[in-house]
Amino acid sequence: MDDIKLAKVESVRMIDRYNTKNPTVGTLYLTATHLIFVEPESNKETWILHMHVASIEKLPLSTTGSPLLIRCKTFLSVTFVIPKDSECHDVYTSLLKLFQPVSINKLYCFNYQPAKDDYPKSAGWDFFNLEAEFKHLLVPNDNWTLCSMNEKYELCDTYPRQIYVPKEATTLMLISSSRFRSKGRLPALTYLHNNKASICRCSQPLSGFSARCLEDEQMLEAIRKTNTNTDYMYVVDTRPRINAMANRAAGKGYENEAFYENIKFHFLGIENIHVQRASLQKVLEACEQKSPTMSAFLNALESSGWLKHIRSILDTSSFIANAVDKGVSVVVHCSDGWDRTAQVCSLAQLMLNPYYRTIKGFQALIEKDWLAFGHKFSERCGHIQTDAKEVSPIFTQFLDCTWQLMSQRSEAFEFNERFLLILHDHVHSCQFGTFVGNCEKDRLDLKLSERTFSLWGFMANHLNEYINPLYRPNVDEAIKANLAPQCIKFWRGMYCRFESGIHPREPLGDLLLDSKEHTNSLEDHVQHLTKRIASFKSYISKSAKKLQDATSTNTKVTKEVAVPNEINDNKYNYDKKLSELSAADDDHPLKANNMSFANLSLNAEQTSPPQDLPDEISSVAIDWKPMRNVTACSCSTPFDQFSKKTHCWRCGDIFCERCIDKNVSLPGHDSGKLVPVCRGCFRQMQKSTP
Amino acid sequence: MDDIKLAKVESVRMIDRYNTKNPTVGTLYLTATHLIFVEPESNKETWILHMHVASIEKLPLSTTGSPLLIRCKTFLSVTFVIPKDSECHDVYTSLLKLFQPVSINKLYCFNYQPAKDDYPKSAGWDFFNLEAEFKHLLVPNDNWTLCSMNEKYELCDTYPRQIYVPKEATTLMLISSSRFRSKGRLPALTYLHNNKASICRCSQPLSGFSARCLEDEQMLEAIRKTNTNTDYMYVVDTRPRINAMANRAAGKGYENEAFYENIKFHFLGIENIHVQRASLQKVLEACEQKSPTMSAFLNALESSGWLKHIRSILDTSSFIANAVDKGVSVVVHCSDGWDRTAQVCSLAQLMLNPYYRTIKGFQALIEKDWLAFGHKFSERCGHIQTDAKEVSPIFTQFLDCTWQLMSQRSEAFEFNERFLLILHDHVHSCQFGTFVGNCEKDRLDLKLSERTFSLWGFMANHLNEYINPLYRPNVDEAIKANLAPQCIKFWRGMYCRFESGIHPREPLGDLLLDSKEHTNSLEDHVQHLTKRIASFKSYISKSAKKLQDATSTNTKVTKEVAVPNEINDNKYNYDKKLSELSAADDDHPLKANNMSFANLSLNAEQTSPPQDLPDEISSVAIDWKPMRNVTACSCSTPFDQFSKKTHCWRCGDIFCERCIDKNVSLPGHDSGKLVPVCRGCFRQMQKSTP
Repeated sequence: MDDIKLAKVESVRMIDRYNTKNPTVGTLYLTATHLIFVEPESNKETWILHMHVASIEKLPLSTTGSPLLIRCKTFLSVTFVIPKDSECHDVYTSLLKLFQPVSINKLYCFNYQPAKDDYPKSAGWDFFNLEAEFKHLLVPNDNWTLCSMNEKYELCDTYPRQIYVPKEATTLMLISSSRFRSKGRLPALTYLHNNKASICRCSQPLSGFSARCLEDEQMLEAIRKTNTNTDYMYVVDTRPRINAMANRAAGKGYENEAFYENIKFHFLGIENIHVQRASLQKVLEACEQKSPTMSAFLNALESSGWLKHIRSILDTSSFIANAVDKGVSVVVHCSDGWDRTAQVCSLAQLMLNPYYRTIKGFQALIEKDWLAFGHKFSERCGHIQTDAKEVSPIFTQFLDCTWQLMSQRSEAFEFNERFLLILHDHVHSCQFGTFVGNCEKDRLDLKLSERTFSLWGFMANHLNEYINPLYRPNVDEAIKANLAPQCIKFWRGMYCRFESGIHPREPLGDLLLDSKEHTNSLEDHVQHLTKRIASFKSYISKSAKKLQDATSTNTKVTKEVAVPNEINDNKYNYDKKLSELSAADDDHPLKANNMSFANLSLNAEQTSPPQDLPDEISSVAIDWKPMRNVTACSCSTPFDQFSKKTHCWRCGDIFCERCIDKNVSLPGHDSGKLVPVCRGCFRQMQKSTP
Repeated sequence: MDDIKLAKVESVRMIDRYNTKNPTVGTLYLTATHLIFVEPESNKETWILHMHVASIEKLPLSTTGSPLLIRCKTFLSVTFVIPKDSECHDVYTSLLKLFQPVSINKLYCFNYQPAKDDYPKSAGWDFFNLEAEFKHLLVPNDNWTLCSMNEKYELCDTYPRQIYVPKEATTLMLISSSRFRSKGRLPALTYLHNNKASICRCSQPLSGFSARCLEDEQMLEAIRKTNTNTDYMYVVDTRPRINAMANRAAGKGYENEAFYENIKFHFLGIENIHVQRASLQKVLEACEQKSPTMSAFLNALESSGWLKHIRSILDTSSFIANAVDKGVSVVVHCSDGWDRTAQVCSLAQLMLNPYYRTIKGFQALIEKDWLAFGHKFSERCGHIQTDAKEVSPIFTQFLDCTWQLMSQRSEAFEFNERFLLILHDHVHSCQFGTFVGNCEKDRLDLKLSERTFSLWGFMANHLNEYINPLYRPNVDEAIKANLAPQCIKFWRGMYCRFESGIHPREPLGDLLLDSKEHTNSLEDHVQHLTKRIASFKSYISKSAKKLQDATSTNTKVTKEVAVPNEINDNKYNYDKKLSELSAADDDHPLKANNMSFANLSLNAEQTSPPQDLPDEISSVAIDWKPMRNVTACSCSTPFDQFSKKTHCWRCGDIFCERCIDKNVSLPGHDSGKLVPVCRGCFRQMQKSTP
């Protein structure tokens, strides 16, 4: 990055699509990693990561300067008008060099350092492990075995080292099937349901117009036999039949039904990466129209075909999930088996198995069906300079389909929309090594786990931002998608999220989560107070008894006034009683606070009521500050619609995620659970407990 | 209703659009007011109010029987397949007689009796009063006066008796202007903003190609002069210019700009009732397509024009609101001034004034701009048999536009979506007299306030169902609608609400409200417990002091042992001390529960700890039962997606609205606020407080 002039340009006007009339004026900074626009009046900062830039366009000169239109992979689209054309040109050429490096080794992840060193570089890299994931599915077992032939990526270099195949499959079958499949991507197990029905994935066969491969046929038969529920299985070709047929001319194509026994073939009509790329482009154009009519927008949305494609992916995934749920195994492929196949295999599993609808399970699903089985993230996301025709929003569609399912069955998902957005943005940011490269082998060769941070490690430190408050674990095993067109919605939260005024400032889910946490805190505190009251009561009862005893003793004493040694002991008796009381049983109500009864009676002598309620009572915030009026954290970070606001459970004030990183046990809580507190409260508590 | 055979038909199959494969079999009952379908297995009941039926269609005989397709004004669409054709015919002809009476006196409201007599017939009829509403707007004042000329509806029989006009307006001007306007609907004040800018409404002038009316011109000039901010005002003709021009041939039309000084005329292009009716019809057809493609649905939605019309109404309303906000007065009319004019006048006020965004204010707005100023509810909603061309979803569109604003600015509205749906359904149900008739005079003539119940009275008993938990009062004075096409959404919650699987079972807003109530209860309880602890502490301090005093007295006594009368008094002293203690200051911790200190020491003598914690501690539910697993109330009413579930604050269990109608003050709450409790808890509390 040595040859980049780090620029600072004054008097730049920033125009976003919905604010064309009142552009904000500020300073534009070009750093090695970000483009930063600072509005001096509001102190608002707009940060654009170079890696997030999708395209840069110099628009025709205007009266106020040279406009530079920047479109981001996060769907932010912004125009900077730079007074001097030469400065605009400098920024433009610098950005061109920065936003899409030629070499993979220049990606952001190789320079990125977290602001604070609170987690090690290794965190997250060991969270997922293919063998453990398959063990979770009870694989290997009587029917399925771990195949060691891909240990050095000899069978298929875009597959994981561990692949699971039918026990019956011979070495010859594996080698031949691999040779007969595009890119060597032979049929391998990706999911085993609890009813023995499985999902295997592969690429298209190199069948051309007439070629066949006996071993490949045997391989599929071996897969079918692992499941004794039915005497047939499905092969799902996710492509439209016509596309599959066209592939035959190139020596590829689809299975000849005549050669494969006991198999039902289905073509399901998901379009290829080029159609999807063009479709997203049209969606963005639909949103960017200048003063469009309602019809123009709806027509543009329809003709983009985006929702049709989303529905088609969900439809195919539902077909697979329904088949497996009914006990029929499915083998899935598209062309190379790394785009559509990855989408529908993972979505079918998401529908079938509640584990994949948890935060950890969803990450595991991505690790397995996207990272291990190979998806060309570098090409599809345009991480580095590449053929523009290789870019396609395949993973974005997977997230979109997940969002559609979430919208329909919110209680079935542990995570929220923010989780999907963060995932989407970091798949493109290259801040973490997790999604760099195109397959497992790439990532090993690049030594990413040593050289870069893992997104999973980062996310593990922010889990509370991703929780869906409506989640009910394990309510339903399998969920079904409603495919009625009125149920497939345009995801404004993704594609229009930077349009001001479209979103409620505070997602309802965040408020609900916050309210539930507040309730939990109060419940805990009530438990504590109730116990405290019980102990007070019991103490008073005992004291009353002792007082009674004491008085009757005294009565006795005054009667037996002749006994002198008892008289002398009287003062001693009282002292003793006090110390007995203060050192009383475990239920002494004030014992916990080192407030001895003697102190109390000292207060009593001053005839003023006790001033300080015990720490434990003041340690739990009763009222929590309402979220909706707060626009900035006390650290002066402004909150936008993407920020998670968090309450300090001790003082009830609101903080940004960076300022509330301490978890402690509050004395006023009965459970002793660790809860988030702000730094100020943390320091105070440190002081008070020596 | 004497001539209607009350029918019961067995083995009827109910098919809804999304459940065509598995129809449910049950019994169909036809009562005087409802069609009821009971599924014996699940005990689920589907009630269809006759007044809600929009159309009944006998479909061609099928193998399983005669299908009867019933479409409702609530957008429920359901088919009953009746085994015998003759029975189907009976139900069909009975329904035809019942669903749309010929006479207004046969409407449901004249027979309706609430299940329980907990509110009188008069409740609600006196909630709103036009004079009070205008006083709220500081009218009458120096510029505006109450005109008494319509006391007997002589000026305009579809207007309210009280109309407000400029002080400058002479009797001649009022009479002439009224004669020069269609249906006598002369310009009258409907809203006065705090900056003197006003909204007046009227109908089109009877100008034809050349007619003019000097007094009408003076009338508008008088209106303009009430506002000294600007030297001009707007006349907004909500119609497309071409429609306005076409009206000239019938001797109506629009104001000739040459004759009206200082006025800017604007045509704003909202289509007429026929276009709107056809548009809604197309929307419903779009939703009812059998296995439509995504494109077919989106195309049908676009070509219905529904969202375009919604946007157009919002656009016109925004124009008016913006003008008034900037200090410019507006006179609004369409053709007769009771459809589009009612929509945009009320929506502009909704944008301008936060009062109208409260529950009470919204009802007042409807009372003023829809009921008092006349909207033909009987015709538009098809309450009685009428020209089908008079039916049009004008009020539904007003609610839709309100919902669009709510979606964009949820924190600005006191009410939620359920409030709008209930309003919509009861405007059509005729269960209440509120929306019966076409104008104020109709309702007076029908003596509705004596003969029927008021919707407002009913709603006042269910306010807690309508609360928006995100509401922040008075945050913004005026709100603006975002009119970008991607911000105008199809309201699935209204038009598709009976489609199973489309809605999350528990609206997030309901859960948030519930969680907030739980928090409030706990906060209140914590306050109470904290005070209780403070009083315990203070009591212990005092007791300690008294004990000390007592002992030192005793010490003294034992020293001055020669004084005999003091010795005898010792027992008396102790008793006195006890009674002093038990009758102690207000902060005696156990006083509230009639537990005297003597009782306590009695307990102490039994050497067992006090068994019963005070009532106050057990009177507040700490854990509230989670809402999401509950499918039926304890009264066995099943909950559907429209039911409001309510927690009992005392036991934490969940009940339907009918079962939780008691509000009491819980002893464990500090505030003494009335909170909802279930009947069981209510009885228990009655018992314990003699």
